[in-house]
Amino acid sequence: MGSRVSARGERLSRTQQQARTRQRLLEAAGEVIAEHGLDGATIDDIAARAGYSRGAFYSNFEDKVALLIALSDSRLAAFADVTLPGLLTGTPDEQIAAVARWLAGTEPPLEVLLLVELARQRLQSPERAEELAAAIDRVLVAVEELLTSYDPHGVEVPTEERAAQARATLAAVLGADLLRHLGAGGDARTLELLLAGIDAGVVRGTGSP
Amino acid sequence: MGSRVSARGERLSRTQQQARTRQRLLEAAGEVIAEHGLDGATIDDIAARAGYSRGAFYSNFEDKVALLIALSDSRLAAFADVTLPGLLTGTPDEQIAAVARWLAGTEPPLEVLLLVELARQRLQSPERAEELAAAIDRVLVAVEELLTSYDPHGVEVPTEERAAQARATLAAVLGADLLRHLGAGGDARTLELLLAGIDAGVVRGTGSP
Repeated sequence: MGSRVSARGERLSRTQQQARTRQRLLEAAGEVIAEHGLDGATIDDIAARAGYSRGAFYSNFEDKVALLIALSDSRLAAFADVTLPGLLTGTPDEQIAAVARWLAGTEPPLEVLLLVELARQRLQSPERAEELAAAIDRVLVAVEELLTSYDPHGVEVPTEERAAQARATLAAVLGADLLRHLGAGGDARTLELLLAGIDAGVVRGTGSP
Repeated sequence: MGSRVSARGERLSRTQQQARTRQRLLEAAGEVIAEHGLDGATIDDIAARAGYSRGAFYSNFEDKVALLIALSDSRLAAFADVTLPGLLTGTPDEQIAAVARWLAGTEPPLEVLLLVELARQRLQSPERAEELAAAIDRVLVAVEELLTSYDPHGVEVPTEERAAQARATLAAVLGADLLRHLGAGGDARTLELLLAGIDAGVVRGTGSP
Protein backbone atom coordinates (compact mmCIF):
# COMPACT_ATOMS: atom_id res chain seq x y z
CA MET A 1 0.00 0.00 0.00
CA GLY A 2 1.51 3.37 -1.03
CA SER A 3 1.51 6.59 0.96
CA ARG A 4 1.22 10.30 0.15
CA VAL A 5 1.94 13.50 1.99
CA SER A 6 -1.26 15.34 2.93
CA ALA A 7 -1.79 19.11 2.65
CA ARG A 8 -0.74 19.38 6.30
CA GLY A 9 2.43 17.44 5.65
CA GLU A 10 1.17 14.31 7.38
CA ARG A 11 2.03 11.03 5.76
CA LEU A 12 -1.19 9.16 5.09
CA SER A 13 -1.64 5.64 3.87
CA ARG A 14 -3.95 5.13 0.94
CA THR A 15 -6.52 3.62 3.29
CA GLN A 16 -6.32 6.65 5.59
CA GLN A 17 -6.70 9.00 2.61
CA GLN A 18 -9.77 7.13 1.40
CA ALA A 19 -11.32 7.17 4.86
CA ARG A 20 -10.69 10.92 5.12
CA THR A 21 -12.21 11.63 1.68
CA ARG A 22 -15.23 9.51 2.50
CA GLN A 23 -15.71 11.27 5.84
CA ARG A 24 -15.50 14.72 4.21
CA LEU A 25 -18.04 13.71 1.57
CA LEU A 26 -20.42 12.49 4.30
CA GLU A 27 -20.08 15.73 6.27
CA ALA A 28 -20.63 17.77 3.12
CA ALA A 29 -23.69 15.67 2.25
CA GLY A 30 -25.19 16.33 5.71
CA GLU A 31 -24.71 20.09 5.25
CA VAL A 32 -26.04 20.24 1.69
CA ILE A 33 -29.08 18.07 2.52
CA ALA A 34 -29.86 20.22 5.58
CA GLU A 35 -29.81 23.32 3.35
CA HIS A 36 -31.48 22.06 0.19
CA GLY A 37 -33.41 18.94 1.14
CA LEU A 38 -32.70 15.46 -0.15
CA ASP A 39 -33.85 16.09 -3.70
CA GLY A 40 -32.20 19.48 -3.93
CA ALA A 41 -28.83 18.03 -2.91
CA THR A 42 -26.94 17.11 -6.09
CA ILE A 43 -23.83 14.97 -6.26
CA ASP A 44 -22.01 17.93 -7.85
CA ASP A 45 -22.96 20.18 -4.91
CA ILE A 46 -21.88 17.59 -2.36
CA ALA A 47 -18.52 16.95 -4.07
CA ALA A 48 -17.88 20.69 -4.47
CA ARG A 49 -18.74 21.39 -0.80
CA ALA A 50 -16.23 18.73 0.26
CA GLY A 51 -13.61 20.18 -2.09
CA TYR A 52 -13.54 17.18 -4.41
CA SER A 53 -14.52 16.30 -7.96
CA ARG A 54 -17.51 14.28 -9.11
CA GLY A 55 -14.98 11.52 -9.80
CA ALA A 56 -13.91 11.42 -6.15
CA PHE A 57 -17.56 11.02 -5.20
CA TYR A 58 -18.00 8.02 -7.47
CA SER A 59 -14.79 6.39 -6.31
CA ASN A 60 -16.34 6.37 -2.82
CA PHE A 61 -20.04 5.80 -3.45
CA GLU A 62 -21.78 3.84 -6.15
CA ASP A 63 -24.67 6.32 -6.33
CA LYS A 64 -26.84 8.64 -4.25
CA VAL A 65 -28.65 5.75 -2.55
CA ALA A 66 -25.31 4.31 -1.42
CA LEU A 67 -24.43 7.74 -0.03
CA LEU A 68 -27.78 7.92 1.80
CA ILE A 69 -27.18 4.52 3.37
CA ALA A 70 -23.65 5.50 4.46
CA LEU A 71 -24.89 8.83 5.81
CA SER A 72 -27.73 7.18 7.76
CA ASP A 73 -25.25 4.69 9.17
CA SER A 74 -22.92 7.45 10.25
CA ARG A 75 -25.58 9.79 11.69
CA LEU A 76 -27.50 7.07 13.49
CA ALA A 77 -24.31 5.58 14.92
CA ALA A 78 -23.43 9.03 16.29
CA PHE A 79 -26.97 9.36 17.61
CA ALA A 80 -26.72 5.98 19.39
CA ASP A 81 -23.26 6.85 20.76
CA VAL A 82 -23.77 10.47 21.77
CA THR A 83 -27.46 11.33 22.23
CA LEU A 84 -29.18 8.15 23.35
CA PRO A 85 -26.92 7.32 26.32
CA GLY A 86 -27.85 10.68 27.86
CA LEU A 87 -31.56 10.13 27.26
CA LEU A 88 -31.59 6.58 28.57
CA THR A 89 -28.96 6.38 31.28
CA GLY A 90 -27.59 8.33 34.21
CA THR A 91 -29.21 9.91 37.23
CA PRO A 92 -32.61 11.64 36.84
CA ASP A 93 -30.87 15.04 36.88
CA GLU A 94 -28.44 13.94 34.18
CA GLN A 95 -31.33 12.60 32.10
CA ILE A 96 -33.28 15.87 32.42
CA ALA A 97 -30.20 17.79 31.28
CA ALA A 98 -29.72 15.45 28.31
CA VAL A 99 -33.37 15.77 27.27
CA ALA A 100 -33.10 19.56 27.51
CA ARG A 101 -30.01 19.56 25.28
CA TRP A 102 -31.74 17.27 22.80
CA LEU A 103 -34.87 19.42 22.70
CA ALA A 104 -32.82 22.58 22.24
CA GLY A 105 -31.17 21.22 19.07
CA THR A 106 -32.02 23.29 16.02
CA GLU A 107 -30.72 21.08 13.22
CA PRO A 108 -33.27 19.71 10.79
CA PRO A 109 -34.48 16.17 11.55
CA LEU A 110 -31.83 14.65 9.29
CA GLU A 111 -32.03 11.15 10.77
CA VAL A 112 -35.80 11.03 10.25
CA LEU A 113 -35.49 12.51 6.75
CA LEU A 114 -32.87 9.94 5.79
CA LEU A 115 -34.89 7.03 7.15
CA VAL A 116 -38.03 8.15 5.34
CA GLU A 117 -36.04 8.43 2.14
CA LEU A 118 -34.66 4.93 2.71
CA ALA A 119 -38.21 3.61 3.31
CA ARG A 120 -39.18 5.12 -0.06
CA GLN A 121 -36.11 3.63 -1.75
CA ARG A 122 -37.04 0.25 -0.29
CA LEU A 123 -40.40 0.41 -2.07
CA GLN A 124 -38.89 1.70 -5.31
CA SER A 125 -35.81 -0.55 -5.40
CA PRO A 126 -36.69 -3.89 -3.79
CA GLU A 127 -33.34 -5.24 -5.03
CA ARG A 128 -31.63 -2.96 -2.49
CA ALA A 129 -33.83 -4.00 0.43
CA GLU A 130 -31.09 -6.17 1.92
CA GLU A 131 -28.51 -3.40 1.84
CA LEU A 132 -31.00 -1.03 3.49
CA ALA A 133 -31.99 -3.60 6.13
CA ALA A 134 -28.31 -4.04 7.04
CA ALA A 135 -27.97 -0.29 7.65
CA ILE A 136 -30.99 -0.32 9.99
CA ASP A 137 -29.74 -3.44 11.75
CA ARG A 138 -26.43 -1.79 12.57
CA VAL A 139 -28.26 1.00 14.39
CA LEU A 140 -30.55 -1.36 16.22
CA VAL A 141 -27.57 -3.42 17.37
CA ALA A 142 -25.95 -0.26 18.73
CA VAL A 143 -29.16 0.59 20.63
CA GLU A 144 -29.40 -2.98 21.96
CA GLU A 145 -25.82 -2.80 23.20
CA LEU A 146 -26.59 0.49 24.90
CA LEU A 147 -29.68 -0.94 26.60
CA THR A 148 -27.71 -4.01 27.70
CA SER A 149 -24.73 -2.08 29.04
CA TYR A 150 -27.19 0.12 30.96
CA ASP A 151 -29.54 -2.13 32.82
CA PRO A 152 -30.39 -0.67 36.18
CA HIS A 153 -32.51 -3.66 37.08
CA GLY A 154 -29.75 -6.23 36.70
CA VAL A 155 -31.95 -8.84 35.06
CA GLU A 156 -31.13 -11.01 32.09
CA VAL A 157 -33.32 -9.94 29.17
CA PRO A 158 -33.95 -12.50 26.39
CA THR A 159 -32.51 -11.57 23.00
CA GLU A 160 -35.90 -11.18 21.31
CA GLU A 161 -37.21 -8.91 24.04
CA ARG A 162 -34.05 -6.81 23.94
CA ALA A 163 -34.45 -6.44 20.18
CA ALA A 164 -38.04 -5.27 20.64
CA GLN A 165 -36.85 -2.77 23.27
CA ALA A 166 -34.25 -1.43 20.85
CA ARG A 167 -36.85 -1.01 18.10
CA ALA A 168 -39.27 0.67 20.51
CA THR A 169 -36.54 3.03 21.73
CA LEU A 170 -35.52 4.02 18.21
CA ALA A 171 -39.18 4.42 17.16
CA ALA A 172 -39.91 6.58 20.24
CA VAL A 173 -36.99 8.91 19.69
CA LEU A 174 -37.53 9.20 15.93
CA GLY A 175 -41.26 9.83 16.39
CA ALA A 176 -40.61 12.45 19.07
CA ASP A 177 -37.96 14.07 16.87
CA LEU A 178 -40.38 14.26 13.96
CA LEU A 179 -43.05 15.96 16.11
CA ARG A 180 -40.44 18.28 17.59
CA HIS A 181 -39.50 19.47 14.13
CA LEU A 182 -43.17 20.02 13.36
CA GLY A 183 -43.25 22.37 16.34
CA ALA A 184 -45.48 19.99 18.28
CA GLY A 185 -43.38 17.75 20.46
CA GLY A 186 -40.72 19.88 22.08
CA ASP A 187 -41.31 18.93 25.67
CA ALA A 188 -39.63 16.57 28.09
CA ARG A 189 -42.89 15.01 29.32
CA THR A 190 -43.70 13.57 25.87
CA LEU A 191 -40.32 11.87 25.71
CA GLU A 192 -40.63 10.71 29.32
CA LEU A 193 -43.96 9.01 28.57
CA LEU A 194 -42.49 7.34 25.50
CA LEU A 195 -39.42 6.03 27.27
CA ALA A 196 -41.43 4.90 30.32
CA GLY A 197 -42.94 2.07 28.27
CA ILE A 198 -39.56 0.78 27.23
CA ASP A 199 -38.33 1.09 30.79
CA ALA A 200 -41.45 -0.79 31.94
CA GLY A 201 -40.34 -3.53 29.55
CA VAL A 202 -36.84 -3.43 31.06
CA VAL A 203 -38.29 -3.60 34.57
CA ARG A 204 -40.44 -6.56 33.65
CA GLY A 205 -37.23 -8.21 32.52
CA THR A 206 -38.61 -11.65 31.85
CA GLY A 207 -39.67 -10.56 28.37
CA SER A 208 -42.97 -12.36 28.56
CA PRO A 209 -45.27 -10.43 26.24
CA MET B 1 -76.35 29.14 -3.98
CA GLY B 2 -76.97 27.40 -7.35
CA SER B 3 -77.28 23.70 -7.98
CA ARG B 4 -76.30 21.29 -10.78
CA VAL B 5 -77.18 17.78 -11.72
CA SER B 6 -74.28 15.36 -11.16
CA ALA B 7 -73.24 12.57 -13.53
CA ARG B 8 -75.39 10.21 -11.45
CA GLY B 9 -78.39 12.47 -11.74
CA GLU B 10 -78.13 13.69 -8.13
CA ARG B 11 -78.76 17.35 -7.55
CA LEU B 12 -75.73 18.80 -5.80
CA SER B 13 -75.36 22.23 -4.28
CA ARG B 14 -72.30 24.19 -5.28
CA THR B 15 -70.85 23.52 -1.83
CA GLN B 16 -71.42 19.78 -2.20
CA GLN B 17 -69.80 19.83 -5.64
CA GLN B 18 -66.76 21.66 -4.30
CA ALA B 19 -66.42 19.24 -1.38
CA ARG B 20 -66.62 16.30 -3.80
CA THR B 21 -64.01 17.78 -6.15
CA ARG B 22 -61.70 18.49 -3.23
CA GLN B 23 -62.15 14.98 -1.87
CA ARG B 24 -61.37 13.42 -5.26
CA LEU B 25 -58.25 15.55 -5.62
CA LEU B 26 -57.07 14.46 -2.16
CA GLU B 27 -57.65 10.78 -2.95
CA ALA B 28 -55.82 11.17 -6.27
CA ALA B 29 -52.94 12.94 -4.52
CA GLY B 30 -52.61 10.05 -2.05
CA GLU B 31 -52.44 7.54 -4.91
CA VAL B 32 -49.99 9.53 -7.04
CA ILE B 33 -47.70 10.26 -4.07
CA ALA B 34 -47.74 6.58 -3.06
CA GLU B 35 -46.63 5.66 -6.60
CA HIS B 36 -44.16 8.41 -7.43
CA GLY B 37 -43.09 9.95 -4.12
CA LEU B 38 -43.75 13.50 -3.05
CA ASP B 39 -41.41 15.13 -5.53
CA GLY B 40 -42.44 12.92 -8.41
CA ALA B 41 -46.10 13.80 -7.89
CA THR B 42 -46.94 16.75 -10.14
CA ILE B 43 -50.07 18.87 -9.96
CA ASP B 44 -50.86 17.85 -13.55
CA ASP B 45 -50.68 14.15 -12.62
CA ILE B 46 -52.87 14.63 -9.55
CA ALA B 47 -55.51 16.63 -11.44
CA ALA B 48 -55.52 14.11 -14.32
CA ARG B 49 -55.85 11.14 -11.93
CA ALA B 50 -58.88 12.81 -10.31
CA GLY B 51 -60.35 13.51 -13.75
CA TYR B 52 -60.03 17.29 -13.49
CA SER B 53 -58.04 20.10 -15.09
CA ARG B 54 -55.13 21.99 -13.59
CA GLY B 55 -57.60 24.86 -13.16
CA ALA B 56 -59.81 22.73 -10.90
CA PHE B 57 -56.78 21.99 -8.78
CA TYR B 58 -55.98 25.65 -8.30
CA SER B 59 -59.58 26.57 -7.50
CA ASN B 60 -59.29 24.14 -4.57
CA PHE B 61 -55.68 24.52 -3.41
CA GLU B 62 -53.39 27.51 -3.46
CA ASP B 63 -50.32 25.38 -4.22
CA LYS B 64 -48.70 22.01 -3.52
CA VAL B 65 -47.94 22.89 0.11
CA ALA B 66 -51.61 23.72 0.71
CA LEU B 67 -52.48 20.34 -0.80
CA LEU B 68 -49.94 18.60 1.47
CA ILE B 69 -51.45 20.26 4.53
CA ALA B 70 -54.98 19.28 3.49
CA LEU B 71 -53.87 15.72 2.70
CA SER B 72 -52.07 15.37 6.05
CA ASP B 73 -55.19 16.67 7.80
CA SER B 74 -57.37 14.20 6.00
CA ARG B 75 -55.09 11.15 6.38
CA LEU B 76 -54.24 11.81 10.00
CA ALA B 77 -57.89 12.45 10.89
CA ALA B 78 -58.75 9.08 9.33
CA PHE B 79 -55.83 7.52 11.22
CA ALA B 80 -57.09 8.98 14.51
CA ASP B 81 -60.69 7.89 13.76
CA VAL B 82 -60.10 4.44 12.29
CA THR B 83 -56.69 3.02 13.29
CA LEU B 84 -55.86 4.49 16.68
CA PRO B 85 -59.09 3.51 18.50
CA GLY B 86 -58.30 -0.13 17.73
CA LEU B 87 -54.70 0.20 18.92
CA LEU B 88 -55.57 2.06 22.11
CA THR B 89 -58.96 0.80 23.22
CA GLY B 90 -60.96 -2.40 23.55
CA THR B 91 -60.23 -5.73 25.19
CA PRO B 92 -56.70 -7.19 24.95
CA ASP B 93 -57.90 -9.58 22.21
CA GLU B 94 -59.40 -6.71 20.24
CA GLN B 95 -56.19 -4.74 20.62
CA ILE B 96 -54.05 -7.66 19.41
CA ALA B 97 -56.31 -8.01 16.36
CA ALA B 98 -56.07 -4.26 15.64
CA VAL B 99 -52.27 -4.30 15.94
CA ALA B 100 -52.10 -7.30 13.58
CA ARG B 101 -54.26 -5.49 11.00
CA TRP B 102 -52.11 -2.39 11.32
CA LEU B 103 -48.86 -4.34 10.94
CA ALA B 104 -50.21 -6.19 7.90
CA GLY B 105 -50.89 -2.94 6.03
CA THR B 106 -48.81 -2.64 2.89
CA GLU B 107 -49.36 0.99 1.93
CA PRO B 108 -46.32 3.25 1.99
CA PRO B 109 -45.91 5.28 5.19
CA LEU B 110 -47.83 8.19 3.72
CA GLU B 111 -48.56 9.90 7.04
CA VAL B 112 -44.89 9.84 8.01
CA LEU B 113 -43.81 10.99 4.53
CA LEU B 114 -46.27 13.87 4.65
CA LEU B 115 -45.19 14.97 8.12
CA VAL B 116 -41.51 14.87 7.20
CA GLU B 117 -42.26 16.96 4.14
CA LEU B 118 -44.18 19.43 6.31
CA ALA B 119 -41.24 19.58 8.75
CA ARG B 120 -39.02 20.47 5.76
CA GLN B 121 -41.48 23.07 4.55
CA ARG B 122 -41.53 24.59 8.00
CA LEU B 123 -37.78 25.16 7.79
CA GLN B 124 -37.93 26.43 4.22
CA SER B 125 -41.05 28.59 4.55
CA PRO B 126 -41.22 29.98 8.09
CA GLU B 127 -44.11 32.21 6.97
CA ARG B 128 -46.27 29.11 6.69
CA ALA B 129 -45.32 27.75 10.12
CA GLU B 130 -48.66 28.80 11.63
CA GLU B 131 -50.70 27.07 8.94
CA LEU B 132 -48.62 23.90 9.41
CA ALA B 133 -48.92 24.06 13.21
CA ALA B 134 -52.72 24.29 12.88
CA ALA B 135 -52.76 21.08 10.80
CA ILE B 136 -50.74 19.23 13.46
CA ASP B 137 -52.88 20.64 16.25
CA ARG B 138 -56.05 19.29 14.67
CA VAL B 139 -54.61 15.77 14.73
CA LEU B 140 -53.38 16.11 18.29
CA VAL B 141 -56.83 17.32 19.40
CA ALA B 142 -58.39 14.25 17.77
CA VAL B 143 -55.94 11.98 19.61
CA GLU B 144 -56.61 13.81 22.91
CA GLU B 145 -60.35 13.33 22.45
CA LEU B 146 -59.78 9.66 21.77
CA LEU B 147 -57.65 9.27 24.90
CA THR B 148 -60.26 11.14 26.96
CA SER B 149 -63.25 9.19 25.65
CA TYR B 150 -61.32 5.98 26.38
CA ASP B 151 -60.04 6.20 29.90
CA PRO B 152 -60.19 2.82 31.55
CA HIS B 153 -58.87 4.24 34.80
CA GLY B 154 -61.64 6.80 35.26
CA VAL B 155 -59.35 9.52 36.57
CA GLU B 156 -59.40 13.17 35.64
CA VAL B 157 -56.25 13.98 33.66
CA PRO B 158 -55.06 17.61 33.60
CA THR B 159 -55.14 19.28 30.18
CA GLU B 160 -51.36 19.61 29.89
CA GLU B 161 -50.78 15.97 30.76
CA ARG B 162 -53.45 14.85 28.29
CA ALA B 163 -51.74 16.93 25.58
CA ALA B 164 -48.39 15.28 26.36
CA GLN B 165 -50.07 11.86 26.18
CA ALA B 166 -51.51 12.72 22.77
CA ARG B 167 -48.09 13.84 21.48
CA ALA B 168 -46.44 10.71 22.87
CA THR B 169 -49.10 8.49 21.30
CA LEU B 170 -48.73 10.13 17.90
CA ALA B 171 -44.92 10.02 18.14
CA ALA B 172 -45.00 6.32 19.12
CA VAL B 173 -47.24 5.29 16.27
CA LEU B 174 -45.41 7.40 13.67
CA GLY B 175 -42.03 6.15 14.84
CA ALA B 176 -43.19 2.53 14.80
CA ASP B 177 -44.73 3.04 11.36
CA LEU B 178 -41.45 4.45 10.04
CA LEU B 179 -39.47 1.46 11.33
CA ARG B 180 -42.10 -0.93 9.99
CA HIS B 181 -41.65 0.50 6.53
CA LEU B 182 -37.91 0.11 6.87
CA GLY B 183 -38.56 -3.57 7.46
CA ALA B 184 -37.45 -3.29 11.07
CA GLY B 185 -40.45 -2.73 13.29
CA GLY B 186 -43.17 -5.08 12.17
CA ASP B 187 -43.94 -6.72 15.45
CA ALA B 188 -46.63 -6.26 18.06
CA ARG B 189 -44.21 -6.25 21.02
CA THR B 190 -42.47 -3.06 19.84
CA LEU B 191 -45.78 -1.23 19.67
CA GLU B 192 -46.86 -2.71 23.01
CA LEU B 193 -43.72 -1.37 24.69
CA LEU B 194 -44.27 2.05 23.14
CA LEU B 195 -47.89 2.29 24.18
CA ALA B 196 -47.18 0.94 27.68
CA GLY B 197 -45.45 4.22 28.56
CA ILE B 198 -48.43 6.28 27.55
CA ASP B 199 -50.72 3.92 29.41
CA ALA B 200 -48.43 4.22 32.44
CA GLY B 201 -49.03 7.97 32.14
CA VAL B 202 -52.78 7.36 31.90
CA VAL B 203 -52.64 5.09 34.96
CA ARG B 204 -50.71 7.65 36.92
CA GLY B 205 -53.49 10.06 36.06
CA THR B 206 -52.38 12.92 38.24
CA GLY B 207 -50.06 14.13 35.52
CA SER B 208 -47.27 14.88 37.96
CA PRO B 209 -44.07 14.39 35.98
